[in-house]
Amino acid sequence: MTTAPRLTAKGRATRDRIVAAATDLIAVRGVAGLSLDEVRRAAEVSGSQLYHYFDGKQALIRAVITRQATAGPSPEIGALDSQEALRAWADAAIEYQERDRGVGGCTLGSLAGELAVGDDEARAELSSGFLSWQGILREGLAAMCDRGDLRADADLDELALALLAALAGGNVLSRTMRTTDPLRAALDAALARVASFAP
Amino acid sequence: MTTAPRLTAKGRATRDRIVAAATDLIAVRGVAGLSLDEVRRAAEVSGSQLYHYFDGKQALIRAVITRQATAGPSPEIGALDSQEALRAWADAAIEYQERDRGVGGCTLGSLAGELAVGDDEARAELSSGFLSWQGILREGLAAMCDRGDLRADADLDELALALLAALAGGNVLSRTMRTTDPLRAALDAALARVASFAP
Repeated sequence: MTTAPRLTAKGRATRDRIVAAATDLIAVRGVAGLSLDEVRRAAEVSGSQLYHYFDGKQALIRAVITRQATAGPSPEIGALDSQEALRAWADAAIEYQERDRGVGGCTLGSLAGELAVGDDEARAELSSGFLSWQGILREGLAAMCDRGDLRADADLDELALALLAALAGGNVLSRTMRTTDPLRAALDAALARVASFAP
Repeated sequence: MTTAPRLTAKGRATRDRIVAAATDLIAVRGVAGLSLDEVRRAAEVSGSQLYHYFDGKQALIRAVITRQATAGPSPEIGALDSQEALRAWADAAIEYQERDRGVGGCTLGSLAGELAVGDDEARAELSSGFLSWQGILREGLAAMCDRGDLRADADLDELALALLAALAGGNVLSRTMRTTDPLRAALDAALARVASFAP
């Protein structure tokens, strides 16, 4: 893991601006097409400022992974502990893909597509990101189970992974096929699978 | 689409050997890590032979996409027109991922992860590949419907896309997390969703 140096508030804001600019550029060009020069221009920082925070493209990419892995469900969505909350989570993902017209998106899944092979450090960080998402989903499902909204025979690990895979697979198909249909179909099917364990 | 020039049987065998070698190398290194020199060595051809068939890395990558898109379900699996056939298809995908210990795999999904952003020609070919897989799955589901194995209210397009997304998403998670659990969970959930439409 890249540990960010201790920064002043202003330094943190500059670093965040650089990472945000890199995230947006990766969404459009992919990791392979990322140019530090473009990041510098988009973030409106000098080359020496950029290198002060990141000693190269790899370090910057790690920071993007960490950013996307810890972004978590939007704050307005909150815990994913009801059918309605899961539906809102799915709808937010579909809307995000729709807004981009399926062009880009800088999701963990798309980063994994580019980085999971051939860059083991990036792969390990992406894996932690997926694990933390799996944990958030599993926690929500466990709360549903505790409240009696899901039967005790529901396999929560399987359901959490199935939801996450529907998101990742739906995104990759939607981005490639330039339609949100696959993402919608995948998430609808995964949510229906969860709903099938209602008592 | 790259159209292969008319080739003698020997020429076709050489070209196939080159594409097979590139596919194997991409499975381990990703598209970004593919070196034509390594392909040449692995396929045991000279540089001029390689350039006779492919005028560069992009042309070779297109040929790999076409190869993987038309590979289709293994011949021993046949039409995906029963729960058992779908189960065998899913098991073959899990076994493929298991054999690789989650390291690589040169699936359409992993190619899409690397190429769907920033290379529009590759994206379009990958999209055709996904469409043709979607068609194979939909055809199988329609046959099940005709035979009365699925209720008439089953949305076959949604189910076909959900199965394909489970495969793509399960693969990307499994490759990143180095365990077949996500792929298994995603495919099990998608198959259960199909089974839920049995009369």
